[in-house]
Amino acid sequence: MTLKEFLNNGDIFAKRNGIQITEIKPGMAKAQMTVTEEHMNAGRICQGGALFTLADLVFAALVNQRENMAFAINSTIYYHVAGKLGSTLTAEGHFTSTHPKVPAAQVVVTDQDGTHIATFTAQGYTKSMPNSFSGLE
Amino acid sequence: MTLKEFLNNGDIFAKRNGIQITEIKPGMAKAQMTVTEEHMNAGRICQGGALFTLADLVFAALVNQRENMAFAINSTIYYHVAGKLGSTLTAEGHFTSTHPKVPAAQVVVTDQDGTHIATFTAQGYTKSMPNSFSGLE
Amino acid sequence: MTLKEFLNNGDIFAKRNGIQITEIKPGMAKAQMTVTEEHMNAGRICQGGALFTLADLVFAALVNQRENMAFAINSTIYYHVAGKLGSTLTAEGHFTSTHPKVPAAQVVVTDQDGTHIATFTAQGYTKSMPNSFSGLE
Amino acid sequence: MTLKEFLNNGDIFAKRNGIQITEIKPGMAKAQMTVTEEHMNAGRICQGGALFTLADLVFAALVNQRENMAFAINSTIYYHVAGKLGSTLTAEGHFTSTHPKVPAAQVVVTDQDGTHIATFTAQGYTKSMPNSFSGLE
Repeated sequence: MTLKEFLNNGDIFAKRNGIQITEIKPGMAKAQMTVTEEHMNAGRICQGGALFTLADLVFAALVNQRENMAFAINSTIYYHVAGKLGSTLTAEGHFTSTHPKVPAAQVVVTDQDGTHIATFTAQGYTKSMPNSFSGLE
Repeated sequence: MTLKEFLNNGDIFAKRNGIQITEIKPGMAKAQMTVTEEHMNAGRICQGGALFTLADLVFAALVNQRENMAFAINSTIYYHVAGKLGSTLTAEGHFTSTHPKVPAAQVVVTDQDGTHIATFTAQGYTKSMPNSFSGLE
Repeated sequence: MTLKEFLNNGDIFAKRNGIQITEIKPGMAKAQMTVTEEHMNAGRICQGGALFTLADLVFAALVNQRENMAFAINSTIYYHVAGKLGSTLTAEGHFTSTHPKVPAAQVVVTDQDGTHIATFTAQGYTKSMPNSFSGLE
Repeated sequence: MTLKEFLNNGDIFAKRNGIQITEIKPGMAKAQMTVTEEHMNAGRICQGGALFTLADLVFAALVNQRENMAFAINSTIYYHVAGKLGSTLTAEGHFTSTHPKVPAAQVVVTDQDGTHIATFTAQGYTKSMPNSFSGLE
């Protein structure tokens, strides 16, 4: 099983909320979500938790490219522009630190017009448990 | 319509992910979520985005207690202990700043045993648009 | 040498900026700074970096109470009220997570009137290098 | 007086800690600090508060390029590699959001070899008070 398959099938919360990894390359990952009625908050814009989950899945695809399993220990999200109903949002992430135990990454969320929707930064913790994927994609 | 009704019915993303406001008092709000199969990430623990959404709904219940509509402009979450399948998680929030334009709050997520699962801090931005709820709960 | 002596003498940056640990108890630490001309920013309020350093020293006093040496890997600060010239600021910190490798803590900065000036949250990373203090204070 | 002069002379805390703005262009600012004995923490690396102040001054140079005065309301810093004694650190910042009231920016700190030392993100609040600089530099 590839890392992409593992995340797209195994992350049930992301999957049922319409979020899928679209690309994983060494040091880079992307995910996509189309904002539907199901992502609306009470103010009729995309719920922050939906944007957060989109970025978080990208983070998982970055920090698990390495030898051992890793997970987020903290994340910060800055909202710049509201995610609108019908938009297709792309999150693209890159490492800001490849520290062996506590890697860090940044994920930028944009819409189909390239508008910068949100910036997400996170730090992970790497366990001693090896990953065993057959590849990235 | 009360603020609680507005959020519990209007926040479709929170609602369809099993998250509901349970209490709103002046300066305090609580929400609850039972961790089910639908909240699992690929590592078989509660997805960070689900914890985030739980805390974010509480934040909305705090910053919208005031005269004008407000929304989060940034949030930080620290994960302390994994949210386990079957747990009932409660998020409780309080203001750390009641600044008229950029209020801040902290939300603590615990499980049914009182274990501290996550700490969420956020800052909001208050628009010039008045809220018109019939009450908090 | 106690942990308090180690930090108050060894943290040269904090020391030369008028910041000193005043109390360390198990799971709690406090530091103090009187806001002088030397802490002013161009807007004539206490520079954010001075508030940050005050809180950061408290964080060091918390995470180094344990068996092994630890240091901050990230921190978030929320500013609530400006720190005024002549104020005496106290930062008080407590653990939010006692995870053996990646502990977390929160530090609240208040002035002499109890006004909440800033909220600081941070996460540390614990090395395999043992601490060898003769005590906390 | 230019914005650069205003910050380099007026930010007394930054100045007395060896931090100076070196460049301000529309949408970009840089500051520099050489890590000396005066910036050491008790672990003999550059104090986090010194890195933070370096980045924070850049943030001030970004958000005050605009019509009205602005200041940081929150900041997050991720530490990637320790700042070493004798290093010359450069912080370079760019906007991530040019929102009129609550702009956001990111500042990256690197050393003279291009090593990525820290990532700083912050959000500002813009007052109704006009800035009146004669130019950026």
